[in-house]
Amino acid sequence: MSTIQDVARRAGVSNSTVSNVLNGRTNRMRADTLARIEAAIQELGFQPNRAARLLKTGHTPLIGLLVPSIANPSYAALGQEVETAARQQGHRVLMGNTHRSPENEMEFFADLLSHGARGVIVFSSLLDDSYFQQYVERGLVVVSFDSRPGHDRTPVVDYVSMDNFAAGRLAVDHLRGFGHSRLAFLSASGQTTSRREKIAGFLAAAQEAGIADSVQVLSGRTCSEYGDAEMAEVGRALAGEVAASAAPPTGVVTINDMLAIGFIAGLAERGLRVPEDISVVGMDNILLATLVSPPLTSIGGPLTEMAHTMIDRVVQRLADPGIAPAEFLFAPALVPRGSVGPPRMAR
Amino acid sequence: MSTIQDVARRAGVSNSTVSNVLNGRTNRMRADTLARIEAAIQELGFQPNRAARLLKTGHTPLIGLLVPSIANPSYAALGQEVETAARQQGHRVLMGNTHRSPENEMEFFADLLSHGARGVIVFSSLLDDSYFQQYVERGLVVVSFDSRPGHDRTPVVDYVSMDNFAAGRLAVDHLRGFGHSRLAFLSASGQTTSRREKIAGFLAAAQEAGIADSVQVLSGRTCSEYGDAEMAEVGRALAGEVAASAAPPTGVVTINDMLAIGFIAGLAERGLRVPEDISVVGMDNILLATLVSPPLTSIGGPLTEMAHTMIDRVVQRLADPGIAPAEFLFAPALVPRGSVGPPRMAR
Repeated sequence: MSTIQDVARRAGVSNSTVSNVLNGRTNRMRADTLARIEAAIQELGFQPNRAARLLKTGHTPLIGLLVPSIANPSYAALGQEVETAARQQGHRVLMGNTHRSPENEMEFFADLLSHGARGVIVFSSLLDDSYFQQYVERGLVVVSFDSRPGHDRTPVVDYVSMDNFAAGRLAVDHLRGFGHSRLAFLSASGQTTSRREKIAGFLAAAQEAGIADSVQVLSGRTCSEYGDAEMAEVGRALAGEVAASAAPPTGVVTINDMLAIGFIAGLAERGLRVPEDISVVGMDNILLATLVSPPLTSIGGPLTEMAHTMIDRVVQRLADPGIAPAEFLFAPALVPRGSVGPPRMAR
Repeated sequence: MSTIQDVARRAGVSNSTVSNVLNGRTNRMRADTLARIEAAIQELGFQPNRAARLLKTGHTPLIGLLVPSIANPSYAALGQEVETAARQQGHRVLMGNTHRSPENEMEFFADLLSHGARGVIVFSSLLDDSYFQQYVERGLVVVSFDSRPGHDRTPVVDYVSMDNFAAGRLAVDHLRGFGHSRLAFLSASGQTTSRREKIAGFLAAAQEAGIADSVQVLSGRTCSEYGDAEMAEVGRALAGEVAASAAPPTGVVTINDMLAIGFIAGLAERGLRVPEDISVVGMDNILLATLVSPPLTSIGGPLTEMAHTMIDRVVQRLADPGIAPAEFLFAPALVPRGSVGPPRMAR
C-alpha cells in the first residue's frame, strides 16, 4: 500500500505539499508541482482512504488529542493540522481540554482507553514517561508534543516539539539586531517544559550578548484553570506593569501570540505604540498575528510537518509496537512583520 | 441532591453566576452577591461533584461535541463554555471537527455511540431530526445548537440557538441609526439554518426601512472543508471585491467576527479605513473583537447561558428520556465598539 510519504518521495516534494493537494489547497501551488504530484498519485495507485478501510473494525480508529485548552489559538491551529493528518490516514480525532491539570490528564487517559481509543497525542503534558508507561503496557500509543523526555532514562513514548530553547535565542538575536538591549520575557504563571526552555534560551542568548543585567522575566498571574482562554488578558495586565516600571524594556518577547496581542492592546490603552515605544516578538505564529495592527513578528515551528510526524508515529506504532521511541525536534523560524523596530534611544 | 439551579434560585441569581463562583471567577462580582451564593451552597449542602460520583460507572460519562471546526474562534469560545458546564455536572467532553460535512457528522454519531458516549451536542449541524431520530431511539441524547427544528414536524431533540433572524435585524438597525443606507452582508459559501436566518433578518430589516434596493449579500468562496479555518482569508478577499465595486456599501455586516477582522485587514491593505470609509458589524462577539484596532462592534448571544442550557438538557434527559423536546432561542445583544460611525457622505 502506498503512503503519502511514497507519493512525496516520488514527486520530490514534502509530505505537507502532498497533503495540500489531497485537501484541495492548490491555489498557491506551481502548476508543474501539482502535475508531478498528481502523476505520482496515479503511478503509485495511492488511495488516501485505503488505510481507513483496512483498519476498519466496525468503527474508525480513534485517537485522543489532549490539549490544555482549545480556546488557546496556538493549540487550535496545531490541533486542526493533527486532525487533518489523522483523517488522511483513516483515523478520527476526539479532543479534550485538560486545563493544565495532571489529574485531568490522567482521567482522560483512563477514559480514552476504556472508550476504545487506540492512541493519544498529548500537548504540553504535565505527566512524564513513568506515567505514560502503564498505558503503553496496556496497548495505547502515546505521542507527547511540546514536551521533552527526561535525561535520566530511555523514553517510552515519542516526543515531538519545536526547539523552544532555539526559539528563545532567536527572539533575542532578532531584537539585538535592531539595537535593543533592555529586554523582557513575558510569560504566564505555571511552568511547562516548553516555557522553561523558551525562557532558558532567552536568558542564555542575553548572557552571551553581555546584557544579562538588563533583561527580566515577568509572569502574569492566571486563574490556573482558565489560563489558556485568558492569555490576552494576561498580556493586557502585563502592559500596565511594564508601562509603570522605572526602566521599561524596549524589546519584549512573549510566551505566545495571544499574550502579545493583549499586551499590544494594553500598551495602546496607555498611549504606548508598537514598535515606536516597545518592540514585540510573539511565539507560535498563529494566523491572527497577520491580522492585528501592527502585524506581529512571531516565531513558530512547521505545524503541518509536526502534525504529520505525530500521526505517522501513531500509525506506525499501531502497526509495529516494537519501534524504538524517538524525539523529533523541529527548528523554529522567525517571521518578521511590523512589531519590531529600532529602540527609541537609538533613533 | 441539590443542583446549580437550586443554588441559583435560593441566591436569586442566574445559573451562570453560580457557575462563575464554582470556577473561581469572582473578581468582578459584588461582595454581597458572592456572600449570598456561598450561603446558598452551604444551606443546600450543594456538592458540585456529587452528580459525577452518582453517575459513575467505572468511567466518567462522555458527551461528544461536534463542531464544524474548532479552529473557528466562534466555536472555540462556545465549546469552552460547554465543556466547563459539562465538567461542573460531572461529564467529560470530547470534541470532533465535522468540517461541515453531513457524512462526517453521521460517522461521528455512529462512532460516539459505539464508543460509549451518552450524549452528543452538535453545532451548526447539516443533519435534521429525521436523522437524529435513530440515535435517540438507541439511547443517545442529542442537542442541536445553532440550528432550528423543521416547521412540519414535532422535534425529537432539543434545539438551542441565538435568535439569528433578530441578530440580522439588529445589525441593520444599528447601521441605520448612524445614517447608513448602502449596506452589504458578507458571508461564506455554504448554507446553514443560522446563516440563512441572519441574512433573512438583514433583508427583512432593509425591506422595512425602504432600502432594499441598496443592499446586497456577498458570499466569499471557501474550500468547503477548510472554510472555518480560513474565515479571515474569506473576509480579506471580500475586501478586494467591495473596494473594487462601483458603488461600495458604507455599512457592512459579517457572518462572524473572524470574517470581519480579515475584511478590515483587507481594507487597510487597500488604504480604506474603518469606520471612516466603511462601518463594520461582526457577529458572535468573540474575545478577539476587543483586541483588534479599531475594536469591533459585534452581536452575540449569552454564551454561558446557552452552554448551561445545552448541558442541563443533556443531564436532565439522561435522567428522564421522556422529557418533551423543546427549542431554546436566546436574544442577541449588540456591543458597540469602534468599528461603526456615520457614513462619509453624511459628514
